[in-house]
Amino acid sequence: MKKLINKPENVEKEMLEGIVKAHGEYVKKLPGFNVLVRAKKKENKVALVSGGGSGHEPAHGGFVGEGMLDGAVAGAVFTSPTPDQVFEAIKAVDGGQGVLLIIKNYTGDVMNFEMAAEMAEMEGIKVEKVIVNDDVAVEGSLYTTGRRGVAGTIFVHKIAGALAEKGATLEEVKAVAEKVIANVRTMGMALTPCTVPAAGKPGFELSEHEMEMGIGIHGEPGTHREALVEADKIVDHMMTKILGDMDLKAKDEVAVMVNGFGGTPLMELYIVNNHVYDVLNEKGIKIYRTFVGNYMTSIEMAGCSVTVLKLDEETKELLDAKANTIAFRV
Amino acid sequence: MKKLINKPENVEKEMLEGIVKAHGEYVKKLPGFNVLVRAKKKENKVALVSGGGSGHEPAHGGFVGEGMLDGAVAGAVFTSPTPDQVFEAIKAVDGGQGVLLIIKNYTGDVMNFEMAAEMAEMEGIKVEKVIVNDDVAVEGSLYTTGRRGVAGTIFVHKIAGALAEKGATLEEVKAVAEKVIANVRTMGMALTPCTVPAAGKPGFELSEHEMEMGIGIHGEPGTHREALVEADKIVDHMMTKILGDMDLKAKDEVAVMVNGFGGTPLMELYIVNNHVYDVLNEKGIKIYRTFVGNYMTSIEMAGCSVTVLKLDEETKELLDAKANTIAFRV
Repeated sequence: MKKLINKPENVEKEMLEGIVKAHGEYVKKLPGFNVLVRAKKKENKVALVSGGGSGHEPAHGGFVGEGMLDGAVAGAVFTSPTPDQVFEAIKAVDGGQGVLLIIKNYTGDVMNFEMAAEMAEMEGIKVEKVIVNDDVAVEGSLYTTGRRGVAGTIFVHKIAGALAEKGATLEEVKAVAEKVIANVRTMGMALTPCTVPAAGKPGFELSEHEMEMGIGIHGEPGTHREALVEADKIVDHMMTKILGDMDLKAKDEVAVMVNGFGGTPLMELYIVNNHVYDVLNEKGIKIYRTFVGNYMTSIEMAGCSVTVLKLDEETKELLDAKANTIAFRV
Repeated sequence: MKKLINKPENVEKEMLEGIVKAHGEYVKKLPGFNVLVRAKKKENKVALVSGGGSGHEPAHGGFVGEGMLDGAVAGAVFTSPTPDQVFEAIKAVDGGQGVLLIIKNYTGDVMNFEMAAEMAEMEGIKVEKVIVNDDVAVEGSLYTTGRRGVAGTIFVHKIAGALAEKGATLEEVKAVAEKVIANVRTMGMALTPCTVPAAGKPGFELSEHEMEMGIGIHGEPGTHREALVEADKIVDHMMTKILGDMDLKAKDEVAVMVNGFGGTPLMELYIVNNHVYDVLNEKGIKIYRTFVGNYMTSIEMAGCSVTVLKLDEETKELLDAKANTIAFRV
């Protein structure tokens, strides 16, 4: 295992402290908990909390700030946060208008966020939740009943966060989050595995000429392994799966995210985007905005996912609204 | 070689087209040349041109836009751009107030940018140049006489770009660029090599337990190889080299950049920053701003560099000024 770390058991804490030391104007850490909240709490708005296991940076702490999240809970690497952690986050961010939990669909996450919601409700905090399940690759997986929640989650943060910032109610913010979830699809692939620091060895193995299609963000198996082919052919395959699960026609507008898994050079992500654009363009689908970079990673895995979000006037406006966070600025 | 590419000979072109398709509001490509310029040219200001070999993304195209560069020239991967390319960039961006070339100190880059400057001057365009040489690791290298230019270059783009945007003269913009160069120092290290697509195999090899200290951004050898140790010890070594070459005392203010080389997870960069902060803090040096991420990469190399820039009132103000580019926003 070659990593720039100290003791594996300290990676989450040292990482969060390193984030706060770099970006204290954006976030602070709750004392005693691996939770990041806005440096300056905004009262009288619906608060958004997301999170999950660590290892997906900049998700989710990088999206805490104006126009996006109010709090992000960081579990151990690839491990659901505990209910206690989530409960602390909810209490810290609640500004009297209720809290929306944005949960990626993994069994442990769903269970622990729901337990935290119950704890918060017993203290009189109004809590709602949405579950993101944008991954079209597989139905059910190692850690999931139903589809997994992956990079499309960032569009939920952005659009629901923008509406919350404008002063909408908890019900309205939840409704727009559900609209995004209904309209967003993602598929991923990997060239290399990744290594959880505490495990010390890669979660799976791929030969020098193989790739894994439909991979999850914890290295969970996808649909199949096959010989590595040209980027354009990989994109064709992913776009066929994604678009086959969406109701898109010419002149519809979409947002696109080409997301790196942590070890993928930007050069390759732009080469992928070059063909994603062409595939959508040939169908007459209009690309309203494109995001290329590391948004929802799997530690140092090489590979990428492509996310397509169908937009309407409301979600376009909210996507364009100001966001000022560490890792996402509009 | 496991890469998300099509034909190795097309990576630069397809990447640039992928950038323009993603971010057409920021940049456009000069027809027939691997040069990115601002989507909307701003006249009547000093124009800044930088560039070099490809493989360092987001450098330099990601820094083209308001408050930073006017044009970025992309050579083949790890290969100096041709004088013709640079000349086209100069002609395209000149707004009548002259052009400043920001060159990383590599023999080929310096030679070809200088030839382009002569060509431009023959056409009546006023051109000045600065050469960035921030790498404290080695004096002279495979491709360099004197120190190499590495991640500190981005602070030159930012600060000189901000002054140019305010309408300063070519001499003033050159002077502030030289002030940044005089006050910025960087050192890097690598855990893994990287592979130039056209070569098809890694530029060097490291065993599972080795790291290379003082590495350059093209995988050029550094000062030595040694057994991989804890991140804090690596940081101690790098900070000793960097601070040993700077005249910093308590209460001085600095900007810090913890830069990933392309294959390094953000988790590790923040763990590095956690200790960089502590080292500076113990000496009473004030950190004015910190940047953590992939700014000046070496394709998919794993490893990082740390950059420290000593600030004064002028450079603090220019560092804070608005920048709106693909990869750098203030």
